[in-house]
Amino acid sequence: MLSNHLQNGIETARLVWSRLPSSEEGERTEIELPSHSRGAESLDYEVIENYAYREAQAQRGKLWVSYYVVLKWLFSLIIGIGTGLAAVFINLAVENFSGWKYAATFSIIQHSYFVGFLVYILFNLGLVFSSVYIVTKFAPAAAGSGIPEIKGYLNGVDTPGILLFRTLIGKVFGSIGSVGGGLALGKEGPLVHTGACIASLLGQGGSKRYHLSSKWVRVFESDRDRRDLVTCGCAAGVAAAFRAPVGGVLFALEEVTSWWRSQLMWRVFFTSAVVAVVVRSAMNWCKSGKCGHFGSGGFIIWDISGGQEDYSFQELLPMAIIGVIGGLLGALFNQLTLFITSWRRKYLHKKGNRIKILEVCIISLVTSVISFGLPLLRRCSACPDSEMSPGIECPRPPGTDGNFVNFYCAKDSEYNDLATIFFNTQDDAIRNLFSAKTFHEYSAQSLVIFLVMFYSLAVVTFGTAVPAGQFVPGIMIGSTYGRLVGMLVVKFYRKLNVEEGTYALLGAASFLGGSMRMTVSLCVIMVEITNNLKLLPLIMLVLLISKAVGDFFNKGLYEEQAQLRGIPLLESRPKLYMRNMTAKEASKNQKVVSFPRVVKVGNIVSVLRSNKHNGYPVVDQGQNGETLVIGLILRSHLLVLLQSKMDFQNSPFPCDMRGINRHNFSDFVKPVSSKGMSIEEIHLTEDELELYLDLAPFLNPSPYIVPEDMSLAKVYNLFRQLGLRHIFVVPRPSRVIGLITRKDLLLEERDHSATTELQSTSHPLLDSLLNQE
Amino acid sequence: MLSNHLQNGIETARLVWSRLPSSEEGERTEIELPSHSRGAESLDYEVIENYAYREAQAQRGKLWVSYYVVLKWLFSLIIGIGTGLAAVFINLAVENFSGWKYAATFSIIQHSYFVGFLVYILFNLGLVFSSVYIVTKFAPAAAGSGIPEIKGYLNGVDTPGILLFRTLIGKVFGSIGSVGGGLALGKEGPLVHTGACIASLLGQGGSKRYHLSSKWVRVFESDRDRRDLVTCGCAAGVAAAFRAPVGGVLFALEEVTSWWRSQLMWRVFFTSAVVAVVVRSAMNWCKSGKCGHFGSGGFIIWDISGGQEDYSFQELLPMAIIGVIGGLLGALFNQLTLFITSWRRKYLHKKGNRIKILEVCIISLVTSVISFGLPLLRRCSACPDSEMSPGIECPRPPGTDGNFVNFYCAKDSEYNDLATIFFNTQDDAIRNLFSAKTFHEYSAQSLVIFLVMFYSLAVVTFGTAVPAGQFVPGIMIGSTYGRLVGMLVVKFYRKLNVEEGTYALLGAASFLGGSMRMTVSLCVIMVEITNNLKLLPLIMLVLLISKAVGDFFNKGLYEEQAQLRGIPLLESRPKLYMRNMTAKEASKNQKVVSFPRVVKVGNIVSVLRSNKHNGYPVVDQGQNGETLVIGLILRSHLLVLLQSKMDFQNSPFPCDMRGINRHNFSDFVKPVSSKGMSIEEIHLTEDELELYLDLAPFLNPSPYIVPEDMSLAKVYNLFRQLGLRHIFVVPRPSRVIGLITRKDLLLEERDHSATTELQSTSHPLLDSLLNQE
Repeated sequence: MLSNHLQNGIETARLVWSRLPSSEEGERTEIELPSHSRGAESLDYEVIENYAYREAQAQRGKLWVSYYVVLKWLFSLIIGIGTGLAAVFINLAVENFSGWKYAATFSIIQHSYFVGFLVYILFNLGLVFSSVYIVTKFAPAAAGSGIPEIKGYLNGVDTPGILLFRTLIGKVFGSIGSVGGGLALGKEGPLVHTGACIASLLGQGGSKRYHLSSKWVRVFESDRDRRDLVTCGCAAGVAAAFRAPVGGVLFALEEVTSWWRSQLMWRVFFTSAVVAVVVRSAMNWCKSGKCGHFGSGGFIIWDISGGQEDYSFQELLPMAIIGVIGGLLGALFNQLTLFITSWRRKYLHKKGNRIKILEVCIISLVTSVISFGLPLLRRCSACPDSEMSPGIECPRPPGTDGNFVNFYCAKDSEYNDLATIFFNTQDDAIRNLFSAKTFHEYSAQSLVIFLVMFYSLAVVTFGTAVPAGQFVPGIMIGSTYGRLVGMLVVKFYRKLNVEEGTYALLGAASFLGGSMRMTVSLCVIMVEITNNLKLLPLIMLVLLISKAVGDFFNKGLYEEQAQLRGIPLLESRPKLYMRNMTAKEASKNQKVVSFPRVVKVGNIVSVLRSNKHNGYPVVDQGQNGETLVIGLILRSHLLVLLQSKMDFQNSPFPCDMRGINRHNFSDFVKPVSSKGMSIEEIHLTEDELELYLDLAPFLNPSPYIVPEDMSLAKVYNLFRQLGLRHIFVVPRPSRVIGLITRKDLLLEERDHSATTELQSTSHPLLDSLLNQE
Repeated sequence: MLSNHLQNGIETARLVWSRLPSSEEGERTEIELPSHSRGAESLDYEVIENYAYREAQAQRGKLWVSYYVVLKWLFSLIIGIGTGLAAVFINLAVENFSGWKYAATFSIIQHSYFVGFLVYILFNLGLVFSSVYIVTKFAPAAAGSGIPEIKGYLNGVDTPGILLFRTLIGKVFGSIGSVGGGLALGKEGPLVHTGACIASLLGQGGSKRYHLSSKWVRVFESDRDRRDLVTCGCAAGVAAAFRAPVGGVLFALEEVTSWWRSQLMWRVFFTSAVVAVVVRSAMNWCKSGKCGHFGSGGFIIWDISGGQEDYSFQELLPMAIIGVIGGLLGALFNQLTLFITSWRRKYLHKKGNRIKILEVCIISLVTSVISFGLPLLRRCSACPDSEMSPGIECPRPPGTDGNFVNFYCAKDSEYNDLATIFFNTQDDAIRNLFSAKTFHEYSAQSLVIFLVMFYSLAVVTFGTAVPAGQFVPGIMIGSTYGRLVGMLVVKFYRKLNVEEGTYALLGAASFLGGSMRMTVSLCVIMVEITNNLKLLPLIMLVLLISKAVGDFFNKGLYEEQAQLRGIPLLESRPKLYMRNMTAKEASKNQKVVSFPRVVKVGNIVSVLRSNKHNGYPVVDQGQNGETLVIGLILRSHLLVLLQSKMDFQNSPFPCDMRGINRHNFSDFVKPVSSKGMSIEEIHLTEDELELYLDLAPFLNPSPYIVPEDMSLAKVYNLFRQLGLRHIFVVPRPSRVIGLITRKDLLLEERDHSATTELQSTSHPLLDSLLNQE
């Protein structure tokens, strides 16, 4: 149908782009985006429709679809098992390193406190050094928590290297070093990253670089499938870190993912449950005593189900105060870390890896000195009366962890309250702070000292070149002031059945709420780690307040950090000013660069060199000589075509598309975390530059369009909800061919079987192009 | 700008629609949709943009926005409190009615079984009759569970009367009668509906009919706000029914809602938590013994936290078998109920309310006879040795509920195992089936009898004219065969620590999974009602299997029922055949009826009479005389305009829009659950028919458009993801004015403050229209 015009039209239309100034690239760089940013258009919508893919799909039978579905679930299973095992491994390693450290230190300080101090410092320094060395030399992307980057990935922005095999390794071993080395950071965020790495590696069929790859598992070509797997991985990470399967699902849903489909939910839940089974089995195995210092453990990390069951209305005021404190301290934490991280990135980390390593080692030294030295300055307290408080072992024998640590005490029946939280593993310290039936265990002075010191350490440690989670430090900080408030409540409301441990838990929730601003998932995680469903309403109250207070000052920790790292997240709602802008105004500074259907290779190259656009409209001429937009071609696909050279042709006329199925579709799929090709890497001879390329088989024939005067808010909704990458702004249409309403979309398949049978499987536009010859 | 053409063009463009055949209505009725179906376009996207609304919004200050936000949260709070109180009220009433019933029956059968039997039957009949009478005479929409209708409402389809005040009343009192009357149905589904009704009534500012309304609370004009509230209500209903706040949130998320926004999640969670607080406070209040037969209760309905903690790998096989049985029986249940309900609708319920009442009364009689008579035929068993099983009270004294019911037994130390489950309240029966440490309590024979009889009763009762939930019957059925399998497991794996109660729980999960096909929310609900987090992986395993088996046969219960009731739900994914259709093909049987911008009133009336379309494109002429589509006008808005007559004008030229702000925006908002106006109800004089109406201020200036050859699957995604109601199919564009990419949407507000200031708040197109004079 288009044929009679193509012969003539091709010449006139061919150089549409050449009329455009070559310098228009500068006009689109108003915001400096990181060059690695990519759209998250799921391939289903944009890329998948090109002719090559349709042909490839058609060759795949039903067996392939079954294989694909089975593999999806199998991968979810493997992600669960892998993340669970990684969590168990990290846990065992950390607990054992810490155990050896404290056992050695305790046995040495029986003879000399100074030698014990040295051993303690060196042990910590060694672990921390190993961590920072691994990260800086081997896996730079493993530094930090990784959650902002994963969030960005799921929102559509790749950070290079974030999902590589080496990052996975760096994360696991780095975490062991940094947490075992006693720094003020946690292993939970890194576990989320670990889960995501495992998922991503599975999704792309293993690591090619390390020859751990097979074509049998490389079936997830679409960006959406890979994103789904990474979402599963994140949920698995949280589930493994906190042994909270439901919390993991909600975390993935609320905090990490940008596009959520209900079909995915069940798979994510499955992965989380697998993690729970794996971790629980490992715990059972540990009960037989094979796990060394890890001991037997329990599935619930900090079980306070024996604590306060009830609350009276007078207690709501102190609980609200805890919420306010959490909001203030959390917002301050975000602000301070933002400030320090940006300073660090600007001045410190530019000077190379040595500075990074040195920095971490100094922080490790300071942390060791504080955590060893401060308890020395505290006076020990007498153990609680064993008759009044049955079941409490006080003091613990040296070399074991637990409550009521005897450290630098004159008498055997004394304990050092500061050492109980400071000179202990994190898990034990939190367990002690949460502990019920232990009134007056801590002096207010010790808690204040610990709060100030640990808060400062956590702020300073954040952003260094080691894997670092913020959950556990947050819980430590929060439970300290929570317990402080609890002590006051015990003092003022003497008659009530108040447990300081419950207030510590609420404090932990409030700080995390004030810093991370998560709500539902945090609530559920707090419930699951403490196994006390009855505290849910109180946790909610505290979270509501702390989030509201925090939101008054700044954004959540992950958003702040993502912004700092230049990860441009698209929020789920359009900004208010967008209501008053039109699509045309939003794109008015652009000069649109179009390609004709058949284009000279040399012209493609010069266009790709002259600008950085990622997509180009393709125009052709219709029956009556008018120009028609026939689709969108992606830069990355043009690069693949230029590199393969397979489709170059001598004639400036459209090719016969039936013969073009030479491309494997996977050629067009960009590996995760790679930067993709660049036009500079492609070398073409002079002769090749004179050849032609027919773009029709490779374009997306119908990208979404909006009329020029649609408000930008509506365009934003379209873009964000559908996860698009390009929208064409077009002139207001001259007529309406039809209206699509609910009725038109509710036709049952049987009503259309006749229609479908008559049609070929390829796209109608392409058919019409094919039939033109 | 358009001015010079409007004078001439108006005459030529005016009768665009009149060229169309008036019979085109018939061409769009290929599927018979219920006349009440409406789109779920949130007003934000479609309606809200008209000029009148923008003006109304502009008059509202910041104070109004704060008020609006506060009211949103306040309403969530009220929904939580209201639903919680409703649940407590229903619970107390049901338990007390049942308590009196059983107490009376037990005391009478000491003397005469026959008189006791009569009293039992009459008591049940009275309660059931009151229920069916209320429902049929007063609130016909209160019949059934209501979940399919609510699901439809949130998907965009109104069922008339489903959210009225009378429905709420009918649901609450109907539930009490039907559940208290011992029918094989539950009160959980109706509670979801109750929560939704409360939410909807709040959202529309009370019930006008019963003069429970105030303009101060009528601020939720947008469909989306109301939908959000209803979602909160659903979550509150589940939270109240099962005392499972997290399960409620997930139920709303997974099963009910169609458009989920993460901002909503926190509000839904808040509502659920409020419900938890209310219910818990009521429970505490009941502990003082003020609740009569309800007793003290506990927040956890069926606490089995003392049960089986661990499981061995041999047990996975019987658990998988439970899953398969659940899938089979669940699918069979769906099929049978579908069949019976459709038969009932076709033949029985057409004959009027008397038949409906008679039907329910007969079912009540049959149920009473079976539940009283069958236990009489069973031989009693001896109570377990009180030394072997400490803490078990056997038998219970007559007149109290509980385990080991003594009914028609020769000796005092005997109990009737069938009466324990059949002649008992539902809650107690389930508690007994779930109970741990009660080996060999039931004989296999009793369980099989109960399973067959109760299954049949549940199938027959489903679809009658009383409020009826399927959760509790499902749990009863499932736990029966679960316990049967558990008994076999105890027999075969003697050495293992197996609890029959755990298998009963798994059976319950499997039946619900096989019938309702919910996954995550069901899992969490099961965990929350039993307070045993450790069983989560097992529940998941069973659910995975039962859902997969069930899906092999048919759709979920709610989908089947929604389909039967003619509620056309849009699924989240496009159907496969849509990939091979274009937008044009989907709408090819339509003749599009357009309006010119200024149109004669008489013409509007005749167009509205001649077809049933809900939206019409409006065309006008551009600068160069070409036609331009300037927007979409809704039928409902035209009806409002025709009725008010305020905007009729003598001149056939565009009006001055600055003066048109005579409409209150709420005029355009259709009350929930009303059928809306009809053109037949509007009476216009001959003179009025000769006047003109300028549609420009009332149209949506930029509905979403798609090019004619876009695949229907993509159109579906656009329609479904954005919750649209109308999409214009337009010709392929001739040029691309701009490309919207991520960069264009990430501009910060400050970059555009200059632009925004220069612009007025109204829409650019409208401005250009205004400036034309």
